[in-house]
Amino acid sequence: MAAMPQFDVVAEVIALQKRFVQAQEFGAARPLDIDRIMDFYAPDCVLWDVVTPLQFAGAQAIRGNVEELFGSLRSLSIKLRDLAVHGDRQLAIARCILELTAVGPRGRTARMTCRITDCWQKENGRWRIIHEHASMPGDLRSGLIEFNAC
Amino acid sequence: MAAMPQFDVVAEVIALQKRFVQAQEFGAARPLDIDRIMDFYAPDCVLWDVVTPLQFAGAQAIRGNVEELFGSLRSLSIKLRDLAVHGDRQLAIARCILELTAVGPRGRTARMTCRITDCWQKENGRWRIIHEHASMPGDLRSGLIEFNAC
Repeated sequence: MAAMPQFDVVAEVIALQKRFVQAQEFGAARPLDIDRIMDFYAPDCVLWDVVTPLQFAGAQAIRGNVEELFGSLRSLSIKLRDLAVHGDRQLAIARCILELTAVGPRGRTARMTCRITDCWQKENGRWRIIHEHASMPGDLRSGLIEFNAC
Repeated sequence: MAAMPQFDVVAEVIALQKRFVQAQEFGAARPLDIDRIMDFYAPDCVLWDVVTPLQFAGAQAIRGNVEELFGSLRSLSIKLRDLAVHGDRQLAIARCILELTAVGPRGRTARMTCRITDCWQKENGRWRIIHEHASMPGDLRSGLIEFNAC
């Protein structure tokens, strides 16, 4: 028989996931705060991002990627949708779709729809992300990323 | 304090993940067996695959995608590497890298390196995949998928 669902964990991780996504937004009114973003990742987190390389292993590599991706942008706003969380005592899985609107250094706006799977683990009473998988699907024949798949 | 690690769950899911990957291999010596593959997915599993659309929700949609992707191939062989599993009582996360070698209908060989995150849930004593995220990273400037990222 399955163990009882962990409703408290699910509610807690839903709130955490929303805060984590909000922490990534920035613009004229609120500057980019990389420390705040990094606070959600475990030190040994493995990130598989939309961009190469294949993986970013550990907080230092993840921070470098955040700096590289976000550092040159004027602003990033995010619409979170389809958030679903499964939780156990010390492990939880959150998946969501992010609709990103990024304004580049020369004022050009880019939109993309990303799929995010965040794996949260509770250690010493604190939930952090131990594995993140972010991607966009593509077309294997043309070899092109589909930036706005639906 | 964190709950005790679930060593038995981790060992069980490592074995399941390996069997699940093996079930996807086929060729002259062993025909494609879609029922065997589908047996690992929960009925309400949500798959985010390397190909569009954004998601495949439910076993029927996932089966359609497996038929579409694998049905025209002569063979598919898979090298699994970097398997890591985190487990709790009724929830486990498996991530691994798959090096796929596919031979197409006209005998052309294609190789790609995919990142797989499988979320397993135990229900009625049985582990099944409730969410799978498969992807390859890309280059946001060129818009191209990186089929063989490292």
